[in-house]
Amino acid sequence: MAATEKIRVAVAGGTGYMGVELLRLLALHPRVEIVRVTSEQYAGKPLSEIYPSFRGALDIVLETLDAKTVARDADAFFSALPHGAAASTVVEALKTGAVAFDLSADFRLRDAAEFRRWYGDHPAPELLADAVYGIPELSRDAIRTARIIAVPGCYPTGALLGLVPLVRAGVVGDGLIVVDSKSGASGAGRAAKTDLLFGEIQENVRAYGVGKHRHLPEIEQGLRAAGCGSQVAFTPHILPIRRGILSTIYVPLRAGADLGAAYGAAFRDEPFVQVLGEGKFPEVRDVRGTNNLQLGWTVLAGGTTAVVVTAIDNLCKGGSGQGVQNLNVRFGLDERSGLQQIAAVP
Amino acid sequence: MAATEKIRVAVAGGTGYMGVELLRLLALHPRVEIVRVTSEQYAGKPLSEIYPSFRGALDIVLETLDAKTVARDADAFFSALPHGAAASTVVEALKTGAVAFDLSADFRLRDAAEFRRWYGDHPAPELLADAVYGIPELSRDAIRTARIIAVPGCYPTGALLGLVPLVRAGVVGDGLIVVDSKSGASGAGRAAKTDLLFGEIQENVRAYGVGKHRHLPEIEQGLRAAGCGSQVAFTPHILPIRRGILSTIYVPLRAGADLGAAYGAAFRDEPFVQVLGEGKFPEVRDVRGTNNLQLGWTVLAGGTTAVVVTAIDNLCKGGSGQGVQNLNVRFGLDERSGLQQIAAVP
Amino acid sequence: MAATEKIRVAVAGGTGYMGVELLRLLALHPRVEIVRVTSEQYAGKPLSEIYPSFRGALDIVLETLDAKTVARDADAFFSALPHGAAASTVVEALKTGAVAFDLSADFRLRDAAEFRRWYGDHPAPELLADAVYGIPELSRDAIRTARIIAVPGCYPTGALLGLVPLVRAGVVGDGLIVVDSKSGASGAGRAAKTDLLFGEIQENVRAYGVGKHRHLPEIEQGLRAAGCGSQVAFTPHILPIRRGILSTIYVPLRAGADLGAAYGAAFRDEPFVQVLGEGKFPEVRDVRGTNNLQLGWTVLAGGTTAVVVTAIDNLCKGGSGQGVQNLNVRFGLDERSGLQQIAAVP
Amino acid sequence: MAATEKIRVAVAGGTGYMGVELLRLLALHPRVEIVRVTSEQYAGKPLSEIYPSFRGALDIVLETLDAKTVARDADAFFSALPHGAAASTVVEALKTGAVAFDLSADFRLRDAAEFRRWYGDHPAPELLADAVYGIPELSRDAIRTARIIAVPGCYPTGALLGLVPLVRAGVVGDGLIVVDSKSGASGAGRAAKTDLLFGEIQENVRAYGVGKHRHLPEIEQGLRAAGCGSQVAFTPHILPIRRGILSTIYVPLRAGADLGAAYGAAFRDEPFVQVLGEGKFPEVRDVRGTNNLQLGWTVLAGGTTAVVVTAIDNLCKGGSGQGVQNLNVRFGLDERSGLQQIAAVP
Repeated sequence: MAATEKIRVAVAGGTGYMGVELLRLLALHPRVEIVRVTSEQYAGKPLSEIYPSFRGALDIVLETLDAKTVARDADAFFSALPHGAAASTVVEALKTGAVAFDLSADFRLRDAAEFRRWYGDHPAPELLADAVYGIPELSRDAIRTARIIAVPGCYPTGALLGLVPLVRAGVVGDGLIVVDSKSGASGAGRAAKTDLLFGEIQENVRAYGVGKHRHLPEIEQGLRAAGCGSQVAFTPHILPIRRGILSTIYVPLRAGADLGAAYGAAFRDEPFVQVLGEGKFPEVRDVRGTNNLQLGWTVLAGGTTAVVVTAIDNLCKGGSGQGVQNLNVRFGLDERSGLQQIAAVP
Repeated sequence: MAATEKIRVAVAGGTGYMGVELLRLLALHPRVEIVRVTSEQYAGKPLSEIYPSFRGALDIVLETLDAKTVARDADAFFSALPHGAAASTVVEALKTGAVAFDLSADFRLRDAAEFRRWYGDHPAPELLADAVYGIPELSRDAIRTARIIAVPGCYPTGALLGLVPLVRAGVVGDGLIVVDSKSGASGAGRAAKTDLLFGEIQENVRAYGVGKHRHLPEIEQGLRAAGCGSQVAFTPHILPIRRGILSTIYVPLRAGADLGAAYGAAFRDEPFVQVLGEGKFPEVRDVRGTNNLQLGWTVLAGGTTAVVVTAIDNLCKGGSGQGVQNLNVRFGLDERSGLQQIAAVP
Repeated sequence: MAATEKIRVAVAGGTGYMGVELLRLLALHPRVEIVRVTSEQYAGKPLSEIYPSFRGALDIVLETLDAKTVARDADAFFSALPHGAAASTVVEALKTGAVAFDLSADFRLRDAAEFRRWYGDHPAPELLADAVYGIPELSRDAIRTARIIAVPGCYPTGALLGLVPLVRAGVVGDGLIVVDSKSGASGAGRAAKTDLLFGEIQENVRAYGVGKHRHLPEIEQGLRAAGCGSQVAFTPHILPIRRGILSTIYVPLRAGADLGAAYGAAFRDEPFVQVLGEGKFPEVRDVRGTNNLQLGWTVLAGGTTAVVVTAIDNLCKGGSGQGVQNLNVRFGLDERSGLQQIAAVP
Repeated sequence: MAATEKIRVAVAGGTGYMGVELLRLLALHPRVEIVRVTSEQYAGKPLSEIYPSFRGALDIVLETLDAKTVARDADAFFSALPHGAAASTVVEALKTGAVAFDLSADFRLRDAAEFRRWYGDHPAPELLADAVYGIPELSRDAIRTARIIAVPGCYPTGALLGLVPLVRAGVVGDGLIVVDSKSGASGAGRAAKTDLLFGEIQENVRAYGVGKHRHLPEIEQGLRAAGCGSQVAFTPHILPIRRGILSTIYVPLRAGADLGAAYGAAFRDEPFVQVLGEGKFPEVRDVRGTNNLQLGWTVLAGGTTAVVVTAIDNLCKGGSGQGVQNLNVRFGLDERSGLQQIAAVP
C-alpha cells in the first residue's frame, strides 16, 4: 500500500475488555481508520460515554451488529465477540472481501473434532484449516497471505513463545512439561459475574480449570506442530491485578541444552520479544500496556530441568496487541506501527 | 439471662457480604446459637460450600426465606436482606416475639415522609417511630428495650460518631459541614454488576451519589436529633480496598472549641472507640475486621475549622459488628462479647 | 524550529518515579532526543537494567550528576531531583543556556519568604520571581518565553484547574474552600521508607499532612494570583493505587453561578482537559498514563455550594506529562506532541 | 497445667510483620500472658503507638533486647528475630529454662553442613539435632517434649502438608516434583527495601530465587524424612496481596494412587486442615488471618500426575499461627486455643 494510505478497519464487539483494548491501539495507529464499531450492550451511544478515556481521542457512535454489513467498506475486520458468536459473524464478514482477525477461540484449533470436543459444533468447520494461528514470531509468512487470522489465546501466547524455540532447537527432553500461569482478572472478560467482583478477587489468588482449561489444546496444538509430543500440565490462576500473565514453565531438557542459543536464534531480530537472559526473570509490570513479551530462565541443579518465565500483557500481546501486530504483518506495514509503547512504570 | 444461656439467632440473607460478615461474628460468639440462615440464591446448600472459610466452623444448611417462620424459636432475628425486602420480613418476624435487628435502611429514618422521598413507600410506616437507631455509643439506653433496632448505615456511623460529640459539646459553629468518605468496595454488596467488577475498581477511585446518596438523610437525622441544623455536603467514594471507610469531616467551630474534651466526654469508657488525639489520624487497616472506630483531628490555622478523621470497617462497625454490639446491649451481655478482635496487620 | 529538528534534552534524576515517567514520555516523543540521564543510585548502569520496560526502546547509560555539565549540548534541561538538590542544579544548568524545567518544588513559590517558611533557605531566591509556574491552560503565554519553568505539584494541578476557572468567572463566593484529594502511592516517590511498603499501603487509606502539606501554599498562591483570597482546607490521602489523583473540591458559590459556562470558557479548546459536565464525575482510571485532566461537578441543594471533582495522573499531568506539555509550548511544537495517549482501560 | 493457669510468654522482635501477627494471636489467647516484647527499632515506645490496632487490646511498652534476660520469668520464649540474630538469642534464652519457639530459619535444618551451605556458620550447631521441626500435623509427638521448636517456613508448610501425606501413603512415583508457590508480600518482611515498595509490587507479579530459594532445603529435608528422594523444582512468586500463599504442586503418581484416602488418613481429625476434595481448589482468602490450611487436587489425564493446591496464610499457619499451635501442643492446651478464627470474607 502507499505509505500514507489508511487501512479501514471495522470492529465487532468493541466494549468488552478485549474490544476496548483493541480500540485504544487502533485509535492511535497512524495507518488505521476505524470505520465501524459494534456493541450489543451500548448500541446507539458514543463510545466515549461508555469509556470516557476516549474523550477527545475517538468520537464514534456504537452500532448494532449486522454480520452481513459489519465489514462493508472495510479492509480488515476484527471480531472481539465471544466464541460461538464470532465464527458465524466472521463467515459473513469474509464475503465482503475483508481480511478477518478473530480474537476469540473460534478459529484457533485446526482440527474440527478437537474443536467440537472443547467448544461444541463449529458453524463452518471447513474454514478451520484455512485460518492461520497468528503468532508472528512463529509463523510470520503464513500470516502475510491469510484470509482468517486466529489471534491466539493469552495463555498459549505466553507458553508457546517460551516453548517452541526450545522444541525447534531440539533441546526439550522427554517427560511432562508444566505450564503454571498467573493472569490478571481482565482475562476473564467484562461479564457481570459474581466471581469477577472486586470483593472476590482482591487479596485473593486461586487456580481454575485445572487440567481442563480450553487453552490447553491450543498449547498442545502449537507444540505438536513444532514436533513436540510431550504431555502438558497447564494450570491457570487468577490474580488481583488488572492485566498481565506470568507463565512459569518447567521443561525437561536434553543433555547439553543451550537455551540462550535457542532463544537467540528465535528472537534476535524480533521487535516485541526481549530476552532478559539466564538468571533474569521478567515482571508483568514491565510489559503492561505493551505488545512486548519478556523472557528469562534458569537451569536447575543436575541440568535436566529448565524453569522458563515469560511475561506478557494478556489484553495486548495476549490479544488485541497481537491482533494489531498481525494486521501490520498482513498489510505489509511496519510491524511496530501503532505498537511502540513503553510500559508505564510504576 | 443466665451467664451461660445461649441467645438463639435466626439470620435472613446470610450470603451477601453483610450477611456473611454477620455469620462470621455470630459463629464465634460465645453466647450465640445460630438456629437458621436463609439465602435465596443458595438455599439447600451448606454454607461452607458457598463460603469455604466456614469449613469446620459453622455447619449449617441454607434455607429458603419464609417470613412467617424465619424467626420461629429464635430470641433474635437479624435481617441482612436488601431494603424493601427487609421491612416486610421484619414485620412478620416480629410476630414471633423475636427482637429484630435490621441491617438494611428500612427502619433507619423515623419520618415516613422522609423515608418515602428517598426509598418509596414503606410497608409498615407506623413502625418507623418504634425502631431505635442503633449506635450504642449515642443511644445505649433506648436500645436496651427496643423491639426493632435499625442497624445504622456504614457512612452515617463513621460520620455521626465524629460529629455528634462535637454537637453535644456545643462546639460546632454555623456553616456547611463537609463529610468526604472513602469506602471499600464491599459496601456496594455482592450483586453481579458490571461496575463492581475487579476490572472497574482496581487502580481506580471515583465519587458517586454526590449530593444525593441515601445515607445523607441518615446523617442529617442524627445531627438534627443532637440539635444541629447545619447543611451537610456528603460525598462517598469507592476505593480499591475490600473493607473500610475513612471519613474526612470538615467542621466549622465556635471560638474556644475543645475537641479533646468533647471526645473524651463522649468516648472515655467506650470499648469500641479509640480516640487517637489531636494531630493523629486513623487508618482503615487498624480497624479492619473489627468493631472499632478510631478517630483523630486537627484544627486549621485561624481556629474556625476542624478536620476530623474517622476510620471503621464498613461491614463490621459499619454493619454486622454494630449489629452484634446492639445484640449484646439488648440482651444484657458483655458488650464486647464476640467482638474482641484485633485487626490483622499487615 | 524546523518541523523535523529535534530538541536535545538532558534529564537529572531519571530513576525516581517522576524521572522514569519523564523518560517514558520523552523516549517516544517524535521531536525529542535524549542526550543525557543522571542517576546517583545507578550511575554507570544501563537504564534498561534498572527498568527493563525500556528494553529495546531507550538504550542509554546512566551518568553521575555534575551540575556544571549536565545541560551541556542540551536545549532543554529537566530536573527530576528532590527539592533542595534541584535548585542548585538548575542554577548551574541555566548557565549553559538551556531552558530549565524543574519537577521539584524549588521554583514554584514566587515569594522567597513563603518559600523559606515551607522549605527553608533557597540557594537563589532572586530567581524565584523569574520562574513561570507552568500550567499551560492557565498561563500559556508566559511559558513561551520562560527561562525556568516550575512544573507544578500534582495536588495543585488537580485543584487549581478545578478552581481558577471559577474564580476567573467570578462565581466563587465567600467562605472556606475544601480540597479533599486522594492520591496514588507513587506520589510519595521511590525512596525506601517503611511507610511506603506494600504491606503498609495495600487495603489501607490514610490522611496525611492534614492542614500543613507543602502543596497548600502552591494552591493558595494560584488562587491569590487569580484574585481569590479564600481560606483553603487541603487534605491529601494516600490510596492503594499506583497512579492517579482524584480531588473532591467544595466551593462556596455566588448566586446564579454558571459552572458550565465558566469551564467552557476556560477549557473549550484545550487538548488535555475534558469537561464531563454537570452530574458526571471523573475516575482516575480514565486519565491514567495520560496528560489529561477530566472534570465534573454538581451544585448542592440550595445552590450555595458546588462539588467539583477532577482526576489526573499524578505522575503525568501532575508532573512529567505536564513537564513535556510545557516543553512543547516553550519550543513551539504541537502541544500534543508525545502526549497522545489513551488510558489503558481496564 | 491447671486449666486456668496462664502461660507466660516473652517475645523478641515484636514489630516486624511476623512479630506483630504473633502478638495479635497471643493477645487474644485465653491461656497466655505476654510478659515482655522487644523491638530494636521502637524500644521505649508503647506497642499501640507503632501499631494502633492494639489500642485498648494490648498495652505494653517495647523493650530493648537483652538475650540473657529476655526469657526471664517466662514459660515460653518466641523469637521473631531474623535468622542469624535468632540463634544466638535462643541459645541464651534456653538457659532460663523457657521453651523456645523460633520463627526464623535458624533451627529448621537438622544438618549443620547443610545449614552452613545456605546460611553460613551457625552459633550453636550442636543444638540443631535437638530442635523439633514444628508442623504438628506431621510430628505432634516430638513437639510435646521439645526444648526448641523450629517453626517452619511459610513455603515449606504449604508444600509439605500437601506432599508428605502422599509420600507416607506410598503413592508418589519417580520423577520431578514441582512446587510453584505464590505468596503475599508480607512474607518478605517489613524492612525498608525499594523492591518491597507499593509501587514495585502493585499490579505486578514476579518469580524470585528460582531454583535457589532457602526454603528449598527445608522442603527437601521434610520429604527425605518421609522417605521421598525426588528432586524438587521450587519457584516462589511475589503477588500484590498482603497475606497468603497458594502452592500449586505437580506430583508424579504411582499407578492406582488414591489421594483422597491418603489425605483422609493424614488429616481426618486435624482441626486446622480442611480437605476440600478432588476437583475443588482452595483460595487464599478463605484461610487469610487464620491458622487453617485448605487443600484440593485433581489427577491429570493418564493418571500419572496429580496437581495438588494448598492455601495458607503465610503469617499465620505459615508462621506465627503455627507457632501458637506448637505452643498449645507443647504445653498441653487445647490445640485450637487462641486460634479459632474464621477468615473475614470478603
